[in-house]
Amino acid sequence: MNHIVIMAGGIGSRFWPMSTPEYPKQFVDVLGTGKTMIQMTVERFAPLCPIENMWVVTSREYVPLVREQLPDLPLGNILPEPAMRNTAPCIAYACWKIRMRDPYANVVVTPADALVLDVNEFRKVIGRALDFTVSGRRIVTVGIKPTRPETGYGYIATGAPAEGGIHNVESFREKPALDVARQYLAAGTYLWNAGIFVWNIDTIIDSLKAFTPDLAEKMDRMSEAFYTPEEETVVSEIFPTCEKISIDYAVMEKADYIHTIPGDFGWSDVGTWGSLWTLLPHDADGNAVVGENIHLNECKGCIVHAPGASSVVLQGLQDCIVVERNGRLLICRLSEEQRIKDFVK
Amino acid sequence: MNHIVIMAGGIGSRFWPMSTPEYPKQFVDVLGTGKTMIQMTVERFAPLCPIENMWVVTSREYVPLVREQLPDLPLGNILPEPAMRNTAPCIAYACWKIRMRDPYANVVVTPADALVLDVNEFRKVIGRALDFTVSGRRIVTVGIKPTRPETGYGYIATGAPAEGGIHNVESFREKPALDVARQYLAAGTYLWNAGIFVWNIDTIIDSLKAFTPDLAEKMDRMSEAFYTPEEETVVSEIFPTCEKISIDYAVMEKADYIHTIPGDFGWSDVGTWGSLWTLLPHDADGNAVVGENIHLNECKGCIVHAPGASSVVLQGLQDCIVVERNGRLLICRLSEEQRIKDFVK
Repeated sequence: MNHIVIMAGGIGSRFWPMSTPEYPKQFVDVLGTGKTMIQMTVERFAPLCPIENMWVVTSREYVPLVREQLPDLPLGNILPEPAMRNTAPCIAYACWKIRMRDPYANVVVTPADALVLDVNEFRKVIGRALDFTVSGRRIVTVGIKPTRPETGYGYIATGAPAEGGIHNVESFREKPALDVARQYLAAGTYLWNAGIFVWNIDTIIDSLKAFTPDLAEKMDRMSEAFYTPEEETVVSEIFPTCEKISIDYAVMEKADYIHTIPGDFGWSDVGTWGSLWTLLPHDADGNAVVGENIHLNECKGCIVHAPGASSVVLQGLQDCIVVERNGRLLICRLSEEQRIKDFVK
Repeated sequence: MNHIVIMAGGIGSRFWPMSTPEYPKQFVDVLGTGKTMIQMTVERFAPLCPIENMWVVTSREYVPLVREQLPDLPLGNILPEPAMRNTAPCIAYACWKIRMRDPYANVVVTPADALVLDVNEFRKVIGRALDFTVSGRRIVTVGIKPTRPETGYGYIATGAPAEGGIHNVESFREKPALDVARQYLAAGTYLWNAGIFVWNIDTIIDSLKAFTPDLAEKMDRMSEAFYTPEEETVVSEIFPTCEKISIDYAVMEKADYIHTIPGDFGWSDVGTWGSLWTLLPHDADGNAVVGENIHLNECKGCIVHAPGASSVVLQGLQDCIVVERNGRLLICRLSEEQRIKDFVK
């Protein structure tokens, strides 16, 4: 059976005050569509598996938000992390847990807060990846065909074709400088690393056992308490002792059975105000607005996010971010958005 | 006995959203002092007369705000205008009403939303004016010694000295162009018209009878119901039929017994964001801020008014007005503040 693991533990500090530690981006209607990022993520995967096979790993404090926003998700499918330990422990927790219920599970792991514009194409790509990983030792990471020399993403260098449009991965590349990003784009053989992984349950568990035996051993111990009344206590005890390590570093960069499937479905990690600006519709002056009752006068190139404000009037702003949420206000030049984290400290 | 009439019917549309038609400027803590404009006005006059002799004329919808902010004011001293009819009917209503209770009343009329920095000096000046008008046919309008070539105020051309530093008024002058304002400032004989009037009750009533007989006749009819259960009904019937006319046009520009007393006590009508900016303390970059938890980064010459916001972070703004109140947000260049009224329509 297919399973979807949604990682929803981020705190979204780059999007303050739209996103706050109490109410981070994955739980926000970032695009003004009436749906939050995690709701859109669940919808995107809905045809691939029943809701009983969807799992949300998140911080303990966000469990009420998950319950509120995904009322159909079985409560037991919300896995609260007692501490943030990067993606490998998070994924391991979910996969050990899934295996106990479904030893033949075929799994997609996805962030909760990315955006896909062409959902049908996305489902086709994920479906092909799931077909490819249903048996054997194969991991697929979804690669996005780049549309610009983006320096904010990691890249995947594709290797030899495997089957059905799927390629071997030659190597993973860090976020590049602009000139390198331009070369990647020109070469045509580099893909953005979307952080979406597909594997069967034996493959990922065997991989973690091979590459992170300490983590795997802790998961084995934790799993003795899974689906028992002691689960919370035992997880609270053991999980925070796991080393902080990303799945990329733990497995993807080590295993020799990593593949990639190129996707071309309008993807964004919505990681910056700038990227959000590119995703939203613009007026004639290049302003992107989320919210009702927002009135712009002589503004250019701004992004305004104030869906909860009762009335917003702006005049004479250029290339600015303007965000209001619950009495919190940010105004900042788009060029300085990397500093928002610091401003908020 | 001295009486103070506070005109508090304005809707303060130039200060949206700090000031809104539901909650206009006179009821707002504009300066962040912990007191609203009308509370500061009452305090300013407190030593000159007991609270029983203070009268607030305002729109009917603002009566609850007056009661809330001035809990010691007797309810009967709040005079609700059933319609806005400019200052002459407003003042006439109050003065006809006062005369019935105190036929020897000596009256100061003041706006509710001006600011005075040197309150002691202000009280001395008003005291001298009251001494001057206590008997005889004399009207005093308070003139402010100009400190800059302000084009936003009307001016008083002073004439011959009368007594005790009080002068005759030669004429009233409309808001001047900048070059004219500069001449006024240089001449030293022109004062700003603060809209504060002092007279005894016979003088103002006789003046209105002489210059606006129709208004006076309506007041005579209304006054038959004053202090009776029919007052509200009768006022609602007659008051809205009064012609819209200012006290300046009705009396001040017509009578030949108008005097002025120059005041030098740090006065402002707080009529624009620019004037508010000049009244507030500034940081090293010329920013003036009202509110807690407001953090400015690379901002210059801005005025920020967000006392109710839980957190405000600004970056890279210059010469801007930033206002937040109850989910309403305005950002506008200071140079364009005259257009705020239009933006809000």
